[in-house]
Order: sequence, then C-alpha cells, then structure tokens
Amino acid sequence: AIAAPAIAQTNPEVKWRMASSFPKSLDTIYGGGEFVAKRVAELTDGKFQIRVFAAGEIVPGLQVMDAVQAGTVECGATVSYYYVGKDPTFAFEAAMPFGLNARQNNAWLYHGGGLPLLREFYKKYNVINFPAGNTGVQMGGWFRKEIKSLKDMQGLKMRIAGIAGRVMAKIGVVPQQLAGGDIYPSLEKGTIDAAEWVGPYDDEKLGFHKVAKYYYYPGFWEGGPTISQYCNLDQFNKLPKHYQSAFEAACAEANLDMQAKYDVLNIDAIKRLVGQGAQLRAYPKDVMIAAQDAAFELYDEIAKENPGFAAILANWKKFREDIHLWWRVAEFNYDSFVLSNPVGGKKKK
Amino acid sequence: AIAAPAIAQTNPEVKWRMASSFPKSLDTIYGGGEFVAKRVAELTDGKFQIRVFAAGEIVPGLQVMDAVQAGTVECGATVSYYYVGKDPTFAFEAAMPFGLNARQNNAWLYHGGGLPLLREFYKKYNVINFPAGNTGVQMGGWFRKEIKSLKDMQGLKMRIAGIAGRVMAKIGVVPQQLAGGDIYPSLEKGTIDAAEWVGPYDDEKLGFHKVAKYYYYPGFWEGGPTISQYCNLDQFNKLPKHYQSAFEAACAEANLDMQAKYDVLNIDAIKRLVGQGAQLRAYPKDVMIAAQDAAFELYDEIAKENPGFAAILANWKKFREDIHLWWRVAEFNYDSFVLSNPVGGKKKK
Repeated sequence: AIAAPAIAQTNPEVKWRMASSFPKSLDTIYGGGEFVAKRVAELTDGKFQIRVFAAGEIVPGLQVMDAVQAGTVECGATVSYYYVGKDPTFAFEAAMPFGLNARQNNAWLYHGGGLPLLREFYKKYNVINFPAGNTGVQMGGWFRKEIKSLKDMQGLKMRIAGIAGRVMAKIGVVPQQLAGGDIYPSLEKGTIDAAEWVGPYDDEKLGFHKVAKYYYYPGFWEGGPTISQYCNLDQFNKLPKHYQSAFEAACAEANLDMQAKYDVLNIDAIKRLVGQGAQLRAYPKDVMIAAQDAAFELYDEIAKENPGFAAILANWKKFREDIHLWWRVAEFNYDSFVLSNPVGGKKKK
Repeated sequence: AIAAPAIAQTNPEVKWRMASSFPKSLDTIYGGGEFVAKRVAELTDGKFQIRVFAAGEIVPGLQVMDAVQAGTVECGATVSYYYVGKDPTFAFEAAMPFGLNARQNNAWLYHGGGLPLLREFYKKYNVINFPAGNTGVQMGGWFRKEIKSLKDMQGLKMRIAGIAGRVMAKIGVVPQQLAGGDIYPSLEKGTIDAAEWVGPYDDEKLGFHKVAKYYYYPGFWEGGPTISQYCNLDQFNKLPKHYQSAFEAACAEANLDMQAKYDVLNIDAIKRLVGQGAQLRAYPKDVMIAAQDAAFELYDEIAKENPGFAAILANWKKFREDIHLWWRVAEFNYDSFVLSNPVGGKKKK
C-alpha cells in the first residue's frame, strides 16, 4: 500500500471583530478583551487577528450578546448578567447575589459542572461562552448618608440593576437603572441616594467619593463576577481546531490575569480614596442577613416559573454548600489568622 | 523599490521532554504537567510535542531543576521550595510560611513585581520559570495525639522539610525528612508523631487517617503554593516566538485549572476522611502565633547573610502588608459572612 500524502498544514488568515461591553477608560475590564486578542495573535503567529471595539463603537455595551448571536461580530467581551432580562439563567455565569467568590466560581465552572450546563443553555442563543476575567468581590457602593441598620435602607434610591436590584427591592430599596455617566450628577444632585459601580480602582475614576462619601462593603451581589467572552457558535465551529484552542487558552489566561491585575490595582486605589475622605463602612449585619434571605427566596420564585433556571440552581446550590463546607476548614482559617494577627504577636503580649 | 519576499512561516517539529517531580498517582499535581503538554500540542497543531515523565523515570523528583539546568530535559514540573538547600530565595515562588494565599500569590507574581524579580534570580540557573498550578492552602498534617497548646508540640517528631521545617524547629518540633512512601509506616510504628503531606484529596490516597487520626489545619507553611514549570533558558530561547507563547499560555491555564480541580476534589475527600474517623482540629492559636513570629525571625536571619533573598523579601513583605490591607475590606468580609451565616438566618430568629 502507498501511504496517503500528508495533508498540508492549514494556517488560514482569519480576521474577527470583538465588541466589548466596556469603555476604554475601564482599562482593566476592557483590557481583558485586548489581552485575548493579543494572545490569540501571538499563538497563531499573527494569522488569527481579532480587532477589539469599545462599547458603542459597533453596538451599545448592553447589546453585545445580541450582536454575537446575530453574527454582526464574531465575538464579544461582556458580563452574563446584562442579559437577565432575556432569561435570569444568564446570572449564574457571572454572579448570583451571595454566590460563589472568584476562586469558587472558577471551580464550579471548570470542574464542578457549571460550564457544561451553561454551554447547553447558551446553545439556544447560538453562542459559546468562555470565562475570561474576574474583578473579585466588588464594593457595596457609595452612599450619601450612613446606613446604621436595615431601617435606613427603606425607600433609599440606589443605582443597582438586574437580579441585585430585585433583591434590593425585596428589602425596601428603590432600585434605579442609570448608565455609568449619569451616576455622578444624580448622586451630586441627590436624585439618587446611593450607587454601586465596581471596586476602588474603577470607582475612583468616576469620582463618586466627592459626592457620596460612605463607601460600603462588600458588594454582596457580586462575590466574584466572571467576565465572559462570547463567540458566535457557527463562527467558532468554522475555526481550525488549533485556533479554537488558542481562543480558549487565551480566555483562561485572561481570567487569571484580570483578577491578578485588579488585586494589585485596588490596593493603591483604596488607599487614595480613603486619603481623599472616603469613609469605609461594612454593611450592617441585619442588612446582609435580610438581603441573603431575599436573594434565595427570589431564586425559588424564579425557579418555579423557569425549569431551566431551576435545574442549574439545584446544581449551583449544592455546589455552594459543599464548597463552603471545605472552605471553612483550611482556606478561611488561614486567611482569618493572617489577616487578624500581625507579625510580632508573641512579642507584644 | 522591490518589496522583500515574505519570509515563509515556520512551524518546525519540536520534541521536548518534561521531567515531573511527582508520581503519576498524584493525578492532580502530576496532571498539571500533562495539561501543559496537551495544550501546547493543541496550540501548535501537533508540531510542538512534550512527553511527560514521572518522578524517577529520568531523574528523582527532587532533582528536576538540576536536570533542566543541565539540559538533560528541556523542561520540568516541580515546586520551587524543593531547592531551598541551594538558596532559600527559591521559596518565594511557591510559598513562604504565613505568606500569600493562592490568589494573592498570583497577584504578586503576575502584576505585583514578583515574577520579574524571580526570573532575574533564575537566570543564574539558566532556567526560566512559569507559574503552572496551585493546591490552595494545604492541610496542617496528621498527628497521632491531639495538640492542645504550643507545649504539646515540644519534642514532637514531625515529617516536614525545608523552610517550614526550620520554622517548626524554632517552636520546639524536631523536623524529619522522609520520602512520601516512608511516611505511613513511620507514623504507624510511632517512629514519628506527625506528618504533613498536601490536602484531603492527596492525603487520602496514602491512608494517613488510619494511623494518625488528628487532622490539623491550616498548613500555615503553604498558604497557596505555586507549582512551577521550569524551562532550560537556552532551549526556550531557541523556540519560535509563537511556541514560546504557547508554552506560557498553557502554563497560565494550568495554574487556574489545577486550583479549580483541587477545590472540587477536596470537597468529597474531606467528607470521606471525616466519615472514616479523621478528627479535624484547628492548630491552637498559640502555636500559630509562635510559628508566625518564628517564620519572620528566620526570614530576617537569612536576609542578613543573603542580599538576593533580602531584596526579594523587602518587596514581598511590603506586598503582603498591602494586599492584606485591601483583603480585610471586601474580600474577607464577604467570605466571612457567607461562611458564618447560612441562608434562612432571618427566619430562624
């Protein structure tokens, strides 16, 4: 027999467009998309080029998934909870209030069954999703007045959207939908009483500390929100296998890299904010307890009407309980000790 | 002028060998090397092939770096603290007792200045290092008898090596060096009183709970040990740029993936161990305080004799303080709340 001739290696030139949900000014979260594009180009010796467009350049930031679904762009950098209006199931990928922290969310997505469940769900939208970034626990927002108990939250107008807004409504807050650029003037005028954004590094750029000095933590509706890359499924399937691998590997690396970058940049930002008068405050415990109960009540309500949501919720709730059980042993105990006991403890006694 | 002809794209066939410090039975940590090899092959359309060898197949597990340095193998999967006998500076990459947790270590390495400092240090060994895995906080080891205070640690023979062993010696423990396979019989006979290994998933395989039932946490000498890939610098420099990128991206992805895998696998392992009689115990606080002080005293002693170590220590200590400051705000507060307050707290009142 004669050996079949080797098939020529194919490294076709591919050009994609990526629509980002973020403005260039949010360099860390917008930068995640650029990171993916740069790494994909490097991995393919420059053959697979992705051009990144900021929010509004091709489509508005909140319509990135629609553009990917329609094939207007081949891929998009976005956050899944922007699309909870279509289906609340979208919230699981990024963050559910009182959900998993960043590392736990990665564990669930990559090895706890999360990603396969979500990919099945995304097929309806002709999209394949890749975790591609994280901010870590966000901050709980800027308040014009101090909150001493759950009572002080009643009737408060707060800029907060999506499922988090529905949780807040259940504990007496009046949630407001406002675009990023409208928050500062509304806080300044007192049209709203509070607003949440991201964390120290991003919040500082918008200057909220100048008009609402109480800076609350933690952002209990975003314990470790995953930033996503969405690809149009048909376009992704057309790629050569090693280009698919390049995209997937670049997203995973971006996931790790964005978190590391935020963790470093937030350090100096929180110091500067406090230096400029921001007053750090923990949410009162009764607010946290009421909000957590409200969140899980809401999940059960949604699950009754939405069997797809219910199926993922069951998996996610079990995982959350299980990983908390393990976290209470080594991980939390270690963090707890080093954060509460400065070096030199013995000598000080 | 005539345009220069385009240089033909080069995708040469490259074959490397990777020596692992781990046996195949430790499928998670050994699997990190296989993950890198598989992903590099996928990213290069099968042109760059790396064959992985378990500890002992080419060189013993603790001599992987030497083999990489000498060029016996092109790369190796290992942990930096195996080489503290050559220079204690090696410890920074993996873990210093009472050091950074996994996410904080990534922040330091990728964006806090850690990796550039360490790469300069590794040049002396003709090696370039890549973070390529993490176990998370390890467990504090198996004890035949319960430890109620620092007094009970005095004279205890414990299997623990490297800088952690030196810290333990300072608080009265007699550290013992034993290979993995010798731990079980030594614990059974009572030749040693205690032994540390990794965490639930790996420890379970060696069956320590059958001969030493007290299982302590946290492993304060490994708050989030980074597993490394080392490449021979000459060999790495000879690779085409996109193969270098493939290796680097695969390592970053392995770093994220191994942690996610451990976080999931440890859940059921700790349940099974407790079901089989393991008694979970937190280290008494006086042990933790004395050990932390001993660790930082040791670092200062080493720094006096080793200017290279001293330079990295200064950077690392400042980063540790800074990131703890930020961690105490949103991240720790969030974990602390969700771990201590089960859903339904309001109703229970």
